[in-house]
Amino acid sequence: MPWTIGILLFDGVEELDFAGPWEVLAMARRDRDRVVTIAEAGGDGIVRCSKGLRVMADHGFDDHPPLDVLVVPGGAGTRREVTNDAVLGWIREVDRETTWTTSVCTGSLLLAAAGPAAGRRVTTHFGFVEQLRERALAGEVVDGPRWVVDGKLVTAAGVSAGIDMALWLVGQLAGVEHARWTQRAIQYDPAPPFQADV
Amino acid sequence: MPWTIGILLFDGVEELDFAGPWEVLAMARRDRDRVVTIAEAGGDGIVRCSKGLRVMADHGFDDHPPLDVLVVPGGAGTRREVTNDAVLGWIREVDRETTWTTSVCTGSLLLAAAGPAAGRRVTTHFGFVEQLRERALAGEVVDGPRWVVDGKLVTAAGVSAGIDMALWLVGQLAGVEHARWTQRAIQYDPAPPFQADV
Repeated sequence: MPWTIGILLFDGVEELDFAGPWEVLAMARRDRDRVVTIAEAGGDGIVRCSKGLRVMADHGFDDHPPLDVLVVPGGAGTRREVTNDAVLGWIREVDRETTWTTSVCTGSLLLAAAGPAAGRRVTTHFGFVEQLRERALAGEVVDGPRWVVDGKLVTAAGVSAGIDMALWLVGQLAGVEHARWTQRAIQYDPAPPFQADV
Repeated sequence: MPWTIGILLFDGVEELDFAGPWEVLAMARRDRDRVVTIAEAGGDGIVRCSKGLRVMADHGFDDHPPLDVLVVPGGAGTRREVTNDAVLGWIREVDRETTWTTSVCTGSLLLAAAGPAAGRRVTTHFGFVEQLRERALAGEVVDGPRWVVDGKLVTAAGVSAGIDMALWLVGQLAGVEHARWTQRAIQYDPAPPFQADV
């Protein structure tokens, strides 16, 4: 079965939060699979990302194809979107039909505010674990795994963790061999040059 | 000293090739550091990336600030750009003034065609090592390292390797401690879910 994946964009979305999963999922596309970007600004609307990159969305909330998978990235803009009823209502509605509902980084704050994370075990960027706990709109908030699966909800840790989560998702959608092929295609044998302190 | 980094965009640029370094380098910016995108299409020109993402460039070839670092990403569009004299001439001219001239993935084909890779030890996406060797416009072409440094030329392997190279570059520009901070900010403790076959 071909799948359609929608990635939410909004002003202040963190670039790699969405571009990592975009690259992985678009690389993994087979014949009729689709990956599209969706923004409240609508199709051809310009989104200004957190670090200043400007991206043009494919669809608005009213004209996108049915989604098998929703990806909600994070970024500084979530501070605003977390009280944006148009975005939260759209997430809630899309989540009813998805096979997987996912987030990267502080995108989990939006899944919590919208409803789909209620009672679910989740993660987020390490710097926002406490905030997500204090909001008390999700279930257990864990700090450590690159991504956490609870039912159909999949939440990734900060920024770059979306790449790892997306590869896992390809394994679920198209099989582990295809995920391995995808990982090889983006030559993802990561080797960060310096050991992180923390 | 504040630095300015320019990332080349063109139709068919691979999304993560530029978005990985963009995220790392923009996250690492201090007070007056800048990271900008530059395309032949000019400032506010729309670039259609390899997998279909549309991005708006910041500057054209005639109106960008002086660059301390040039990043040349790869992607299917390099097949066309490798004979585009406007792009190759621009790379050659910019390279005269940079502290570092870098590429990701098949961006090395452009550095080779433009001149800066002549006689230099380089790498590229594993699937294009032979092609880069056959073109005989660079020095030794190695297959294996995430990135290769030869003088001021730094070339990364495929797609995701640009993240690792960019973190190394932050270490050169702003010190290892700042590179570690940057790595932590994007939570780059990668853990690909499946072992690659190859």
